Amino acid sequence: MKITLKDGSVKEYESKMTVYEIAKDISEGLARVACAGEVDGEVVDLRTELDKDCSLNIITASDEEGLKVIRHTAAHVLAEAVKRLYPTAKITIGPAIDEGFYYDFDAEPFSRDALDNLEKEMKKIIKEGKEIKRFTLPKDEAIKFMQEKDEPYKVELIEELDDDAVISFYDQGDFVDLCAGPHLMNTKGVKAFKLISSSMAYWRGDEKKARLQRIYGTAFNKKDELKEYLQKLEEAKMRDHNKLGREMDLFTTVDVIGQGLPLFMPKGTKMIQKLQRWIEDLEDNEWGYVRTRTPLMAKSTLYKISDHWYHYKDGMFVMSDAELSEEEAKRQGGREIRGVQDLSLIEHDADADTYALRPMTCPFQYYVYKARQKSYRDLPYRMGETSTLFRNEDSGEMHGLTRVRQFTISEGHLVCTPEQIDEEFKNCVKLAKHCLTTLGLQDDVTYRMSKWDPEHSEKYLGSSEDWDRVENAMRTILDEIGLEYTEAAGEAAFYGPKLDIQAKNVYGKEDTMITIQLDMFLAERYDMYYVDKNGEKKRPYIIHRTSMGCYERTLAWLIEKYAGKFPTWLCPEQVRVLPLSEKYIEYADEVAKALKARHVDVTVDSRSEKLGYKIREARNERLPYMLVVGAEEENTRTVSVRSRFAGDEGIKSLDEFIEQICKEIDTKEIRKEENLEETK
Amino acid sequence: MKITLKDGSVKEYESKMTVYEIAKDISEGLARVACAGEVDGEVVDLRTELDKDCSLNIITASDEEGLKVIRHTAAHVLAEAVKRLYPTAKITIGPAIDEGFYYDFDAEPFSRDALDNLEKEMKKIIKEGKEIKRFTLPKDEAIKFMQEKDEPYKVELIEELDDDAVISFYDQGDFVDLCAGPHLMNTKGVKAFKLISSSMAYWRGDEKKARLQRIYGTAFNKKDELKEYLQKLEEAKMRDHNKLGREMDLFTTVDVIGQGLPLFMPKGTKMIQKLQRWIEDLEDNEWGYVRTRTPLMAKSTLYKISDHWYHYKDGMFVMSDAELSEEEAKRQGGREIRGVQDLSLIEHDADADTYALRPMTCPFQYYVYKARQKSYRDLPYRMGETSTLFRNEDSGEMHGLTRVRQFTISEGHLVCTPEQIDEEFKNCVKLAKHCLTTLGLQDDVTYRMSKWDPEHSEKYLGSSEDWDRVENAMRTILDEIGLEYTEAAGEAAFYGPKLDIQAKNVYGKEDTMITIQLDMFLAERYDMYYVDKNGEKKRPYIIHRTSMGCYERTLAWLIEKYAGKFPTWLCPEQVRVLPLSEKYIEYADEVAKALKARHVDVTVDSRSEKLGYKIREARNERLPYMLVVGAEEENTRTVSVRSRFAGDEGIKSLDEFIEQICKEIDTKEIRKEENLEETK
Repeated sequence: MKITLKDGSVKEYESKMTVYEIAKDISEGLARVACAGEVDGEVVDLRTELDKDCSLNIITASDEEGLKVIRHTAAHVLAEAVKRLYPTAKITIGPAIDEGFYYDFDAEPFSRDALDNLEKEMKKIIKEGKEIKRFTLPKDEAIKFMQEKDEPYKVELIEELDDDAVISFYDQGDFVDLCAGPHLMNTKGVKAFKLISSSMAYWRGDEKKARLQRIYGTAFNKKDELKEYLQKLEEAKMRDHNKLGREMDLFTTVDVIGQGLPLFMPKGTKMIQKLQRWIEDLEDNEWGYVRTRTPLMAKSTLYKISDHWYHYKDGMFVMSDAELSEEEAKRQGGREIRGVQDLSLIEHDADADTYALRPMTCPFQYYVYKARQKSYRDLPYRMGETSTLFRNEDSGEMHGLTRVRQFTISEGHLVCTPEQIDEEFKNCVKLAKHCLTTLGLQDDVTYRMSKWDPEHSEKYLGSSEDWDRVENAMRTILDEIGLEYTEAAGEAAFYGPKLDIQAKNVYGKEDTMITIQLDMFLAERYDMYYVDKNGEKKRPYIIHRTSMGCYERTLAWLIEKYAGKFPTWLCPEQVRVLPLSEKYIEYADEVAKALKARHVDVTVDSRSEKLGYKIREARNERLPYMLVVGAEEENTRTVSVRSRFAGDEGIKSLDEFIEQICKEIDTKEIRKEENLEETK
Repeated sequence: MKITLKDGSVKEYESKMTVYEIAKDISEGLARVACAGEVDGEVVDLRTELDKDCSLNIITASDEEGLKVIRHTAAHVLAEAVKRLYPTAKITIGPAIDEGFYYDFDAEPFSRDALDNLEKEMKKIIKEGKEIKRFTLPKDEAIKFMQEKDEPYKVELIEELDDDAVISFYDQGDFVDLCAGPHLMNTKGVKAFKLISSSMAYWRGDEKKARLQRIYGTAFNKKDELKEYLQKLEEAKMRDHNKLGREMDLFTTVDVIGQGLPLFMPKGTKMIQKLQRWIEDLEDNEWGYVRTRTPLMAKSTLYKISDHWYHYKDGMFVMSDAELSEEEAKRQGGREIRGVQDLSLIEHDADADTYALRPMTCPFQYYVYKARQKSYRDLPYRMGETSTLFRNEDSGEMHGLTRVRQFTISEGHLVCTPEQIDEEFKNCVKLAKHCLTTLGLQDDVTYRMSKWDPEHSEKYLGSSEDWDRVENAMRTILDEIGLEYTEAAGEAAFYGPKLDIQAKNVYGKEDTMITIQLDMFLAERYDMYYVDKNGEKKRPYIIHRTSMGCYERTLAWLIEKYAGKFPTWLCPEQVRVLPLSEKYIEYADEVAKALKARHVDVTVDSRSEKLGYKIREARNERLPYMLVVGAEEENTRTVSVRSRFAGDEGIKSLDEFIEQICKEIDTKEIRKEENLEETK
């Protein structure tokens, strides 16, 4: 057989060879670092026997796929260690993930001490250099095998496989795991690993199923790579908004209120207020938006007209007047209201008295549009709303401020003639970029065109032709702007394709920050029209969009981006005046008053503490400016400026400082920190 | 017997006399205008026979009670007219009310034409001068009597009376009604009446019972009084926010969204935005508040701790994870969580997964307070929130913007030491008065001290001593301020007394605009404390208060107060620039830009319409300022100012006008309208 290698060279062998043997044949060194093989594009075990012509790429630890194999094997080593120290623990699943691996056990919670002990045990297992072998069993024998080992979760997994499946196991001596592989040849291939944390998880991610204990770990090819990763992780933790945001008193959560329902503390509230006023004024005064304020709930009927009800009901908070609706529902039977053209049908809605909190603003703003007849002269009609939305997220999904049950977005809908779509869409992208740039986040995002999934056309409104047309239109627009973007099938809204602006959190997890969507269907659903030049009724197109996105998520990103050291204009406290002693409190108050008159957020620290203590405290709180005032300052109407950016900025006249900070705030400057040799 | 008259004089009679006979005995003129008598303080029929010593006051049409009798009789005349024209209609109840009367019929809806015909029929009945007689029946006979007349609603009413009740009827010849009276002696006593409107009502105000048709009418003693009233009513209708607010495009409602859930149109949204920013900045910058932003829903557990759940549950929107909670509820049985001192109890809450939309902000802000330990130095801790609340009002209760299911208030809670209560409460009153004065509503309100109801102490927390103490404290504060106020038992919150600032709508209906409440119980419920000077934990007091009240209601009052001609600072569009022709659009845009730079809300009307047309339109929209610009204005950088206040204000330099309007806006001036002789 002929084996074509990555560099194009061809090796010929007479008989069957494993991937590992071929690697060894190429060089002993390659065999030492080999983790897996890629045969005709498929990643396989080093053990895999090749018996016919194929292309082969030896995957090593320096490939992403190789690292994955190492991590997957590390997960098996962890599972063996758990079974050694906790024989009654039951194993479930343990995959490699983006930055490491995890394994879920049915066991008691693991403390940090327990994780340390497990690490020691894992090191032993690695040192023992146990060979890892693969074998397969038919389904019935596989079930029997795992029943004998008393591993009910594995039995459940096998039972769900096809009856004629050939089921593979990996055996490392004292521990065997049901696994599709691939794996390393020997446990000693795991050279640098660390158990990171432990947390609760549900079997199959289902709250109603068994509670498991998940251990997260990571593994690298080399010790210094691991060290570097752990260092970065440590730094990420310092910036983690869910930790830092609480420490800085920006938000909190409360058990008896509920998960995913953060309470913004005064400082966090102030920051959101600043963001909100900025966005509202920006949209209304500079981008031609009108503002709306629509209710946070509606009858289920409203959501049925668009089909939102059938797409999102599971994620909605529904308030049902059960008494009425059940009886009515019985009498009338089911779902009359779906994509109604004839709005009179809504009178027959079986659960007309079921109200639900809104998961989106679309139909509410459509009814603002519809309230008065519009002509082509009124278009584009751009509506903006600071809109609070609700999504009934699963408890396992929620996280800090980025995945919550209630959030507020800079929502908007632009109703356009077909001719206006192009320019309006481009302007939406411009506005989004302007917001990102103002916040300093412009280089931290990627652009994704989210398309429908032709394989699941039942999930979308319209025909294949409709989608081709509108996706092509969006592609043309994006190319004209010169945007770099990826394309992702199956990520569109059910009514049209989206441009999603994506950003990653400190741990590398990606979320959507801003979305701009092209909708060609809902205007018809809601019977929206405009009167054209000839007096004829025409259907408009609709752009759904956010300018800055969601306030909670933006705050989270800002915390992580700046590690809490926000640009001055966003700071809840921009200046703190520190009188040198009681004698100068009056002047300090005067300074504060002058700043307040120019809308600067200022406080006076008039406590009888030492100056050094007050300065350290203000620095810990990441305040941008401290103004120290004593006799000299009072006599000359000056202030001694200390900033987060440049340390001691010397004495300035009060008026000069006010002009300086007002300019910084008005222009939303992101002042850089100079390298400070801070003297205490 | 001796009859003591109102003027103190005494009449003596040998035998029984009716009130009417005594009136006649006093003077024929008095008998002609007599409507009823007041015997020992009780209002009775003129037919009532007196047989023992008593005091007597003859009530005439010029007394309020007399007018009520006329109106009540008018209601009977209406009922007879309905039975004459619609013999199958069933009668129900028909009382006199504040400004007239109504009568509910089980009948088809009445058109305005139908009402006109009924008025004609009523006039006939009045002209017929039918004597009205009173008679009584025992219960069983009364039921039979109304069964024979086929009046099932009357039968139902009688069936609910005591078995030994003596039941009175009023007979005006062809029509007999079950009625407690009193009534006039003759239908011709109804001299001036009008049927106002007709609307749907439910039997006994219960949505689940029969739909009835209510006819509203009014009656007066004299024709010119009626005319004056109808004129005032017409004027009130012109100001009615529910009519004018829609006409002015401030808000709308939508059937498929739901009743009590108004959508604010761009202009209304802008007004609320201005109000909101004003209040937030006022509270934070001038009155020492910190701002919070807390979630709009919580687990039912949160509301149980305070008892809010048991007081308000019926009026709350509840979202239940029914599957879980029912099962759990069965297992655990009932209401463990009520006024828990031991917060660990909440783990046993039977429906911990039941979420509800909040009807108030209190506990949410308490948890902001609790997030960090507070010392006496942190108190008073004043928290403000622009807080959206939800109340599941009955459909019959909802009205325009004043009674809605979702509303937003300028909410706040002040956590104080006992010593601070006095000054903080006074400052809350001052702040409320400042808000009212700024809006020009200060003279339109009355103050009410809302007290508990000792007869229903089970509805309140705490003991009689607690309530006496805290009500006395509030009374002392109010008296020290020198406030004029009434006292109302049974109007307190369940946790303490309130000062309610009341205002009336155009029709005279009173609602609460602002409330300031003293709470001595909830700090304990939520285990809130502060550390005093000696390092000991102490319970604070809490003031619950609004500064301006509810945004929706305030907007409603402003619309009615100003008939849509709002103070300039509140106007969604403050200036409209009218170029004399196309040639001056560029200069018009320049003028607009200069105004925008100073945050004035300005538009340019660049349509090719005649100037007169544009001016009329702007005037109809109640805009405060129009700036006409043509060649002269462009050349001299001036504007021709036309205002709603003074008509033609002449030519001003652009800079001068900008300074003038910015000052008017910044000071929130309420510029008065001069008497205008508008030339068109």
